[in-house]
Amino acid sequence: MTETALHARKRIEIVVEAKRADDVTELLDRLGATGWTVLPVAQGRGRQGIRQSGDLSGVLDNVLILCIGSAALAERVLAAREELLGARPAIVSVSECQVLRGERFG
Amino acid sequence: MTETALHARKRIEIVVEAKRADDVTELLDRLGATGWTVLPVAQGRGRQGIRQSGDLSGVLDNVLILCIGSAALAERVLAAREELLGARPAIVSVSECQVLRGERFG
Amino acid sequence: MTETALHARKRIEIVVEAKRADDVTELLDRLGATGWTVLPVAQGRGRQGIRQSGDLSGVLDNVLILCIGSAALAERVLAAREELLGARPAIVSVSECQVLRGERFG
Repeated sequence: MTETALHARKRIEIVVEAKRADDVTELLDRLGATGWTVLPVAQGRGRQGIRQSGDLSGVLDNVLILCIGSAALAERVLAAREELLGARPAIVSVSECQVLRGERFG
Repeated sequence: MTETALHARKRIEIVVEAKRADDVTELLDRLGATGWTVLPVAQGRGRQGIRQSGDLSGVLDNVLILCIGSAALAERVLAAREELLGARPAIVSVSECQVLRGERFG
Repeated sequence: MTETALHARKRIEIVVEAKRADDVTELLDRLGATGWTVLPVAQGRGRQGIRQSGDLSGVLDNVLILCIGSAALAERVLAAREELLGARPAIVSVSECQVLRGERFG
């Protein structure tokens, strides 16, 4: 019963430098994302060594961008791979999720 | 071997205004969640346009509430859909995960 | 087509006290993780009651560590269960994801 209230969507998670976050969210907007959420990152290690936010109240080096959308949106994001990778994200990951009110996640 | 150490659970992710977060966590408590985690959100775009935390050290408009629990808990959360949506969450999503020490996530 | 650009990986999510986060990330490093990301936590409830960051600009009690890697890495993390649990994490969860540039997530 309640199961029928859920709609399958894709959960796209992108970790990128804070200063390049706008490049990613503008791309998501252009590709038709109905929304996205940006989470601060306190610290990270990747190919370029350890990154740490200078101070917890100050500029944060990286952010995590979460975008939930249809499989078609995820396909468009992946098809824009070259532009997306131009923002030099540390992580681009996609997983399965189910949402309430699927019409809000086109 | 190590596989047997993992237990299937549901990962519930809710993005909501910070000022309504207590409504959601109190609902989760009441429905029997054994715990939850609240992450700050720096920025977001949804049906109501762009939201930005006033300043990074100040009041954050949105938060992301993460709650891992049993399939039965997830069912109860979805069955309480009307009350949950009363907190006007931007996102209610559910996905599959596996946890160590499943007894801690009832 | 774009599907072939994605590579299946494991998404490991660990919530732990901020002061023990280094124990976890050093373990991940030692086990061969190619990277990890630490997100601040604003508030949480678990077996030890409610935890709240003292103030939003100050010391945060808990953090969420996100690590994406191969199934083999996830196996090694689970095999190191005793050492991992020594850091007293509130949550150790594993889920499926797919990433661009799989070679970066060994």
